[in-house]
Amino acid sequence: MINVGIVGGTGYTGSELLRLLVRHPHAAVDVVTSRGEVGKPVAESFAHLRGHLDLVFSAADTPALRNCDLVFFATPNGTAMHDAPALLREGVRVIDLAADFRLDDVAVWEHWYGVRHASPELVADAVYGLPEINRERIRGARLVANPGCYPTAVTLGLLPLVEAGVIALSPVIADVKSGVSGAGRKANAGLLMAEVGESFKAYSVAGHRHQPEICANLRRATGQAVDLTFVPHLVPMVRGIEATLYAPLRDRDAQLQALFEQRYAGEPFVDVVAASVALETRSVRGTNNCRLSVQRPLDGDIVVVQSVIDNLVKGAAGQAVQNMNLMFGFDERAGLDAVAMAP
Amino acid sequence: MINVGIVGGTGYTGSELLRLLVRHPHAAVDVVTSRGEVGKPVAESFAHLRGHLDLVFSAADTPALRNCDLVFFATPNGTAMHDAPALLREGVRVIDLAADFRLDDVAVWEHWYGVRHASPELVADAVYGLPEINRERIRGARLVANPGCYPTAVTLGLLPLVEAGVIALSPVIADVKSGVSGAGRKANAGLLMAEVGESFKAYSVAGHRHQPEICANLRRATGQAVDLTFVPHLVPMVRGIEATLYAPLRDRDAQLQALFEQRYAGEPFVDVVAASVALETRSVRGTNNCRLSVQRPLDGDIVVVQSVIDNLVKGAAGQAVQNMNLMFGFDERAGLDAVAMAP
Amino acid sequence: MINVGIVGGTGYTGSELLRLLVRHPHAAVDVVTSRGEVGKPVAESFAHLRGHLDLVFSAADTPALRNCDLVFFATPNGTAMHDAPALLREGVRVIDLAADFRLDDVAVWEHWYGVRHASPELVADAVYGLPEINRERIRGARLVANPGCYPTAVTLGLLPLVEAGVIALSPVIADVKSGVSGAGRKANAGLLMAEVGESFKAYSVAGHRHQPEICANLRRATGQAVDLTFVPHLVPMVRGIEATLYAPLRDRDAQLQALFEQRYAGEPFVDVVAASVALETRSVRGTNNCRLSVQRPLDGDIVVVQSVIDNLVKGAAGQAVQNMNLMFGFDERAGLDAVAMAP
Amino acid sequence: MINVGIVGGTGYTGSELLRLLVRHPHAAVDVVTSRGEVGKPVAESFAHLRGHLDLVFSAADTPALRNCDLVFFATPNGTAMHDAPALLREGVRVIDLAADFRLDDVAVWEHWYGVRHASPELVADAVYGLPEINRERIRGARLVANPGCYPTAVTLGLLPLVEAGVIALSPVIADVKSGVSGAGRKANAGLLMAEVGESFKAYSVAGHRHQPEICANLRRATGQAVDLTFVPHLVPMVRGIEATLYAPLRDRDAQLQALFEQRYAGEPFVDVVAASVALETRSVRGTNNCRLSVQRPLDGDIVVVQSVIDNLVKGAAGQAVQNMNLMFGFDERAGLDAVAMAP
Repeated sequence: MINVGIVGGTGYTGSELLRLLVRHPHAAVDVVTSRGEVGKPVAESFAHLRGHLDLVFSAADTPALRNCDLVFFATPNGTAMHDAPALLREGVRVIDLAADFRLDDVAVWEHWYGVRHASPELVADAVYGLPEINRERIRGARLVANPGCYPTAVTLGLLPLVEAGVIALSPVIADVKSGVSGAGRKANAGLLMAEVGESFKAYSVAGHRHQPEICANLRRATGQAVDLTFVPHLVPMVRGIEATLYAPLRDRDAQLQALFEQRYAGEPFVDVVAASVALETRSVRGTNNCRLSVQRPLDGDIVVVQSVIDNLVKGAAGQAVQNMNLMFGFDERAGLDAVAMAP
Repeated sequence: MINVGIVGGTGYTGSELLRLLVRHPHAAVDVVTSRGEVGKPVAESFAHLRGHLDLVFSAADTPALRNCDLVFFATPNGTAMHDAPALLREGVRVIDLAADFRLDDVAVWEHWYGVRHASPELVADAVYGLPEINRERIRGARLVANPGCYPTAVTLGLLPLVEAGVIALSPVIADVKSGVSGAGRKANAGLLMAEVGESFKAYSVAGHRHQPEICANLRRATGQAVDLTFVPHLVPMVRGIEATLYAPLRDRDAQLQALFEQRYAGEPFVDVVAASVALETRSVRGTNNCRLSVQRPLDGDIVVVQSVIDNLVKGAAGQAVQNMNLMFGFDERAGLDAVAMAP
Repeated sequence: MINVGIVGGTGYTGSELLRLLVRHPHAAVDVVTSRGEVGKPVAESFAHLRGHLDLVFSAADTPALRNCDLVFFATPNGTAMHDAPALLREGVRVIDLAADFRLDDVAVWEHWYGVRHASPELVADAVYGLPEINRERIRGARLVANPGCYPTAVTLGLLPLVEAGVIALSPVIADVKSGVSGAGRKANAGLLMAEVGESFKAYSVAGHRHQPEICANLRRATGQAVDLTFVPHLVPMVRGIEATLYAPLRDRDAQLQALFEQRYAGEPFVDVVAASVALETRSVRGTNNCRLSVQRPLDGDIVVVQSVIDNLVKGAAGQAVQNMNLMFGFDERAGLDAVAMAP
Repeated sequence: MINVGIVGGTGYTGSELLRLLVRHPHAAVDVVTSRGEVGKPVAESFAHLRGHLDLVFSAADTPALRNCDLVFFATPNGTAMHDAPALLREGVRVIDLAADFRLDDVAVWEHWYGVRHASPELVADAVYGLPEINRERIRGARLVANPGCYPTAVTLGLLPLVEAGVIALSPVIADVKSGVSGAGRKANAGLLMAEVGESFKAYSVAGHRHQPEICANLRRATGQAVDLTFVPHLVPMVRGIEATLYAPLRDRDAQLQALFEQRYAGEPFVDVVAASVALETRSVRGTNNCRLSVQRPLDGDIVVVQSVIDNLVKGAAGQAVQNMNLMFGFDERAGLDAVAMAP
């Protein structure tokens, strides 16, 4: 049994970590911090945790974090880079669910995130926490950069194609759609239900931070530079990401279904389905699964991959727990065996 | 004032026609037919029409249709091709909101729709009712094939690029998303709110009937054969279509914004917005507008066009009224001046 | 043609006023103010108004308001009581869509709204703008207090019963449900779609400001003091209010349907439907209608009234326009003839 | 480990039983029947079960049911009364999730369900499966009538008040609201998302079958006849029931909060919260909990109880599993320890 802490437990990734960890067989949540709600019972902020968790929020600088085996940063971008180093020095392992350590090129990071990186020396140390490409390094990591939600869905969908060299690397299109919980739990008039309900839109078409993250993933895993166009959209639902990925087929004889099935044969959380199955986001809701399908519309030369995840689970908190399981030698599936909630 | 009839008035395109026509300054609805609800007041089936319409449903073969100046077929595919010819022979003009006359190649039509065409001789006569490419021919038409909802959004988005020759014609990607009213008002367990609410999915990835329709439109308007990959998705909302379109830029000096603005300068229902404007489907809800934006993500070589319409208005009934206005010499905007309903 | 101004045009009641007024045959919007967005085109904040309105937001204290025939306050509670007096002194007529002048008892108002009333001397002058009980006084009013959304739905539902004396006055229950736009357009984490989507709850059960407003309405109209329990609920949709009202029947021979039909026989915006009709909020969406039905479940001694309105139209901006029409001698229906948008 | 069967596994109560049972520590699902999908893998119909269940649908009359320790009927009303007797004779225990055995008065049942009861002799034998009032009888039951969703929420909310005699028994009002999954998974145009999305309505106001069930529950548990007015409503969401209950307080000194807390002190699935807590349906989504609060608005004489459940769990499948746990001597909580999914 390990003791874990959560820094910034008042957002959705924090509450989802709690939802998963209160059922985890090998981890106990010892401390949850919040800047604004110190002393308040966590279950008052998150009624769904009532009866499952007896903690109150601690201050962000509580020394209790130093006694944890692992601390999750469920904070906005730019927090962990300041606060993680001290914990790491104490021997506490860290998983950052934000973006601070996701890009190994600090200059690129600073360009996209608009601030100076506070701990550039840690960036090389950090392990990108996508187990499907980095499992062994995650096992030994002190600091894991938990992937973004979109990059998880898109990287897993493109990976088999790029690795196998069956597609041309340009142009590759990722048209992705997310439920509104992906935008977090902050007071923002643009995310009111009266603003985003019963409507659909693209956003950040000119450029989104997850584009370089995906490209870095694919380069890291395959050595290839993919020319990716990435357009995110907002869906009037709470949870779920669907990515529809398009790439020009180079090898017309490629056995795409087999390629995907083989690539992910041993993966506990990647499920390749037949092209005939409709891939609904709700089929993975509340679970750590990524479901993929691959096909060639009208038997043409464009490969289309569909990828669905729950943005708060495989796209955030569930993947963080999967990484924790790897880092501490637990069964990779521990605490992550929920059945999706449908309808 | 003309007298119009609606065949098949119990679906969403029929009820939307009624919603628009009861306010139209130059058209009066004389007859609405229904196979299943003969004798029932229309406003009992459609409570929103209560107080605006005093008709009862007539039988599908009512002779009253022959006294109309214009009959709209708001029927399933495969109905108008049987029933329109008799009306046309009586001098009644016809607008078919289904697909029977949308493809000029009868063999292609029969392939996609899976039945023999009952009136192939009429196909050449029919005018495809997208005013932005066919305005003059619509004015003189006896039989108008009202465009599909997806083809309207996609064709208008790609047209300026193809006409001007600024993109390569392959690969062109149309990733389109529709609210559930696009699937019609039929008892279908797959469209229950408990099935499609809080979820998102692609469908018909292997091939969808609107793909050949869009290709035919572009070929008709520009003489060019576009290699189009078209993937539709279902959004958990009632109304609205968003299309995100991707094409390789050929001419890096193209002034895309100006190109779109000039192409649609005189169009009453196409509105080109600045790239900085978020294109939400609700900004056109209930209206006959198509809103477009164009940009190059990360200043790269892929052009991204966004196109939003209300699938029941510009994507169906509103465009049919626009066509009626043209056919009868009314102001093209007559009856179509609503302000979008937001929030 | 009159010139009107809107103070506080960045919320939902303001944008809905604009949606209605840009189509009004006898009123032109001359000025729209905003504290935060001075100089910005209104149609940038409200994309659905693009093409319909060419104004920019003015400062809240713009002298242009003094040249208006009528100024609407679409502001938070507590604004009009400060700013309306100066306009009234200049001869400008005022309709306040907030609560400042709705309760004639200033002490009760101050209790519920928690501040001192800034213009208690104007309260007696103000006319409560529910045309169905106050039409003649509204025609001559300088200052109209536009009713709350819940009070509109509940008052119209209970009025015939109380006036006719067919129910006991205690206990009367109003279980009301509203879409989220009723909570306004302010940055509030509690109204994020991720918080209120796919969920349902009661709120303010201990007491809500609209309870005394409803009781005052019924007392004003009938001289009777109703012992009302009022519980509001939040529905995961954007627009619409449904009120289910329960009262003990006193007169078992009362002809309830006839009573309601007669009470509202001449009313342009109240529609009494048969008990067999399902009263959906969407059947009045976008319109100024209130639809009512009345029945006795299991033929028992409890009368159940259903009342549906669009909270932004008959519950706010539409009723304000109806009041404007009365104040200026226009057709009461002018600008309010939309057909509901369904689906 | 017991072997269980499910008759009628293609609806929502069936799929929800499967969702719960595949994780149950003491029960294994051996057989799932379906009239329409014999031979089809269950996980093809229910994608969320993929990877958790390897069964195919069996025919409704499969002899395999006779080898089960327990069979759940997740069928429409009127099925179990025909098919359960044969199983019971074989010693198989039965839980009917439909209404066939819920009312002990056969004449009343026949009145409300409109058919002759096929097994009236079994009605007296059947135990109404609401553990909070019938725990001991359920332990020994051969045949359990699993309660309706609304009756569960309403009965648990009213029970402490009626038992303690602190309210007058007339008029008692239950204004209840349900997500659309409560209506089942049948092709019904009235439940399309395009029909029920973005709208709210009451239904069955004249009388609903759950009214006599609730009255029977309260009479059974307390000996009192409650004069109940019950009005159900449809909420545009998938899961969840909220009941707002109103009753006249008789004993003004009653300690309502304490009364509720004491009544449910030992109950594993009833959670009484402070009046200040907003009771959202999502706070119990996916769980077997019923959450209750009680208060007196404006300190008046009407008691208001709020009750929230997940209609598919405590309102159907979860309660059935709770009953199974009792019947077979398992921990009552076994398989029912999920944390609610929010957001």
